[in-house]
Amino acid sequence: MMMTRKVALLFFVLIFSSVTIVWATNPLLKKAVVTAENMEPSYQFPAQIEEANVKLAKLYKKTGKRPNILIMLVDDMGWGDPGSFGGGAAIGAPTPHIDKLASEGLKLTSTYAQPTCSPTRATMMTGRLPIHHGIYRPPMYGEPGGLDGEITSAQLLSEAGYLTALVGKWHLGELPAQQPQNLGYDEFFGFLAVSDMYTDWRDPAFSPEIANRPEVLQAFENAPFNKNLVQAHKGEKLEELVKITIPVLANLDQKFADYTVDFIQRMAKEDQPFFAVHAFSKVHYDNYPADGYAGKSPSGYPYKDGIIEVDDIVGRLIKTLHETGQAENTLVFFTSDNGPEEDNFPDSGHTPFRGAKGTTWEGGVRVPGIAWWPGMIKAGRTSDGLFDLADLFTTSLAVAGAKDKVPTDRYIDGIDQNSFLLADDGESNRRTVFYFFQDKLAALRIHNIKFNNYLFISENPAKAAKSNTFLQKASYVWAHDLSIDPKERFPAITGHTPRFTWAVPMMTQEVVRYLGNLRKYPPKKSKVMMLK
Amino acid sequence: MMMTRKVALLFFVLIFSSVTIVWATNPLLKKAVVTAENMEPSYQFPAQIEEANVKLAKLYKKTGKRPNILIMLVDDMGWGDPGSFGGGAAIGAPTPHIDKLASEGLKLTSTYAQPTCSPTRATMMTGRLPIHHGIYRPPMYGEPGGLDGEITSAQLLSEAGYLTALVGKWHLGELPAQQPQNLGYDEFFGFLAVSDMYTDWRDPAFSPEIANRPEVLQAFENAPFNKNLVQAHKGEKLEELVKITIPVLANLDQKFADYTVDFIQRMAKEDQPFFAVHAFSKVHYDNYPADGYAGKSPSGYPYKDGIIEVDDIVGRLIKTLHETGQAENTLVFFTSDNGPEEDNFPDSGHTPFRGAKGTTWEGGVRVPGIAWWPGMIKAGRTSDGLFDLADLFTTSLAVAGAKDKVPTDRYIDGIDQNSFLLADDGESNRRTVFYFFQDKLAALRIHNIKFNNYLFISENPAKAAKSNTFLQKASYVWAHDLSIDPKERFPAITGHTPRFTWAVPMMTQEVVRYLGNLRKYPPKKSKVMMLK
Repeated sequence: MMMTRKVALLFFVLIFSSVTIVWATNPLLKKAVVTAENMEPSYQFPAQIEEANVKLAKLYKKTGKRPNILIMLVDDMGWGDPGSFGGGAAIGAPTPHIDKLASEGLKLTSTYAQPTCSPTRATMMTGRLPIHHGIYRPPMYGEPGGLDGEITSAQLLSEAGYLTALVGKWHLGELPAQQPQNLGYDEFFGFLAVSDMYTDWRDPAFSPEIANRPEVLQAFENAPFNKNLVQAHKGEKLEELVKITIPVLANLDQKFADYTVDFIQRMAKEDQPFFAVHAFSKVHYDNYPADGYAGKSPSGYPYKDGIIEVDDIVGRLIKTLHETGQAENTLVFFTSDNGPEEDNFPDSGHTPFRGAKGTTWEGGVRVPGIAWWPGMIKAGRTSDGLFDLADLFTTSLAVAGAKDKVPTDRYIDGIDQNSFLLADDGESNRRTVFYFFQDKLAALRIHNIKFNNYLFISENPAKAAKSNTFLQKASYVWAHDLSIDPKERFPAITGHTPRFTWAVPMMTQEVVRYLGNLRKYPPKKSKVMMLK
Repeated sequence: MMMTRKVALLFFVLIFSSVTIVWATNPLLKKAVVTAENMEPSYQFPAQIEEANVKLAKLYKKTGKRPNILIMLVDDMGWGDPGSFGGGAAIGAPTPHIDKLASEGLKLTSTYAQPTCSPTRATMMTGRLPIHHGIYRPPMYGEPGGLDGEITSAQLLSEAGYLTALVGKWHLGELPAQQPQNLGYDEFFGFLAVSDMYTDWRDPAFSPEIANRPEVLQAFENAPFNKNLVQAHKGEKLEELVKITIPVLANLDQKFADYTVDFIQRMAKEDQPFFAVHAFSKVHYDNYPADGYAGKSPSGYPYKDGIIEVDDIVGRLIKTLHETGQAENTLVFFTSDNGPEEDNFPDSGHTPFRGAKGTTWEGGVRVPGIAWWPGMIKAGRTSDGLFDLADLFTTSLAVAGAKDKVPTDRYIDGIDQNSFLLADDGESNRRTVFYFFQDKLAALRIHNIKFNNYLFISENPAKAAKSNTFLQKASYVWAHDLSIDPKERFPAITGHTPRFTWAVPMMTQEVVRYLGNLRKYPPKKSKVMMLK
């Protein structure tokens, strides 16, 4: 009897230690640390934090001012559009400047946006997912829906001594309280909504029932939404510059580029650091080529000519940073706001993944991401570490030395990823990407494993469904290892393909945790009408 | 009356000249030149030919010997697997060495193989499409089917003074007359067929009905096909080295790498230039990780570990070229033999395109292509110019100064692309890619336009179907501009999407021309049984 117990104990110890070894080396089992109750937990790597801090301190000592931050946000560009992500020349529009940015910086292959435009922009600017900031879809034609009541990175960076600018597309509300100059931006030059809203109804090819009838066209002209290129300074009234007709829209990105080039040149002479968001109008449909760009791409399609133009502008902005001596003191982050708008083919981009804009498949939310900062971010790096665009909020504040300004009265989904970007072999600090479809949690990803429609496999689906309205109701579940099944084609859990039932406990833990947050930090209601 | 005629004439001239302008700038309308009756017509760009010739002459003057040629051929690697093609770290297996090759050389985004392995290998080696060399599918388990009667690049390069080697997978026939040492190779070290044929039936996981029954297993051991790692020297009998069991297969690519490294080192001391084909066993299923490679990839799947191993070997071979001072005198071409073997998921690779191995969709035939040659091929180039692996035959001979050896008694599909590769801004010399499914013409591509199932739209489908058995019978046609629709999702010709009816005449011209060739140069019959 005694012997049997000893054997059993030995057996238990052996099994336990071997499980522990497998367990301990499984990247899904890294432990995220809670740094504050209202902050998304994150991986903490002391050595890389130290490395990043040393770099930042050294640079500050050299320049005497905080680093500039320039975010370049393309509209509706697909993950697969840039050459460095498998597109470029292969799909009729080489992107040498974007590719150079990637080869000189850090290519982030798992950068996540929201399924549509405005939710992504709001998330970038507030560090909060839509469930918290309440913008679940783009407001259209003067609908309400803005960042009122939210705190933006521009506001906090302003307080920290930055000059802040938003150039290009806003699409986060048209009412005065929702305009950029009233939400932390010192300068705003751009438009309030989205390109197609200004021209779709003007173009007989798309809207013959309006464009071909002067009286109906006039009614649209008079409709209560802003149709102008506008500008504003902090706290002041918006100034309308010119009505956005088709030829004006075609050349808007050139105007935006001129503005940002001038802004960068001006800022070189200032003691203040800058925070600028350059939000392209292109390559959102409808792409009307700018002067000199029609047919400039090898492909010849307006979308592709738009890619060429965007790439040229990326080149111009980087050149200006170099020429004004600011490249080494500016963190540049290049990305897109969602997957390609496939429904609008052929005026749409490319993703190698399943699905497109408007979905929580990878094609809808995975976007190109490049972090560039000569001397600070090691050239030629590529990482598949998770990066949610919410992280830009917290990372920007950290880089600016203003992390103490991160709000404590609300939930912050954005993680400080500055050590991931700056340490030469930095790893992502993010454990989980939560994919929301409007206000429903539709999927989650840890490491390479993604569960779509989690509810179905939760321990007690019936109870979960009843007790929580934020889980997507689904009739089936799919799980995918995105490393081996990037197109989400082969359903796991069932079938003679990889099974991830072993991952259920850690996925459950994350879902339960996040839904728990929603009890402490209740979701925000949408200001625009939503289909239930 | 006179006036009316003048107006009509003016009108005609105006229309004609504007059509001519559109026509003349359309890249589909470049004229291919017939250089010989038995050769596929090609674009001829005198300036880039001159530039390439000058470079080659200069190098010859410097080194005093013809350049070496090293072809690296991976098995079943998908277009999307290397990092520089959008894969790598993004899909769980970074490929730093392949990516370095691409960034230091010419990335060819439209490189075409055949839908399966052996047809591709035969095409590479003979410069002829399967319709001409007669290998329409891989011969399995001792089936007949080889290059008997064909002339290989190895033969011709041997005659031109090259030492030639085939290391790794052959899969072009097992009979003595079909073995590499009897088809132009001075050295052969590898196996005669394909990896899964040696181990599939040995593995209880895949073939319990064989592997778990000793008497059945023994019957397979005795079956009449070669199951060994073998080696041979020109004209000599094959020597069997070791039986390929699962652990032997796992480590074969290491043996192949050792052999090629030694070969490159030996050749550094010789006056002879070399022509070597390094044909990997991996990443064809079933991928058993080599010693030290299990779990080495971030993904952890055997396929991904195989990618890491292949990439390491690419690094080793390139390092050896550098160390032996031969890098600047060696053209390296890296590619794969067909799209990923998706049916074998999860032991399969990635393509962003539609379809996979075994189909004429882009996913089946479009493979990564990299041409590397320091000092000769400008670093950092990317081109979507068409490159068929048949072109390796003619291009190799041209680079070796042995173009006069190209046979005149048979049809040669391969085009001399040496000026495309060598001129700093070289353009592809290839007008058309013909996609054959076995002996049926299934599709063709000119510039970015691809027509699938051409027959349906040919001028007189009924007549064409009757009079030519080499056109694929289909119930529908799809046409795609691969630049805007790389996934071949949106059917054109019909629908409110791009239409290419205007491209029908030039497509027809090419189909008619190619089918005409088949009358002059009759197709070869398959030696293996084909389903009709």
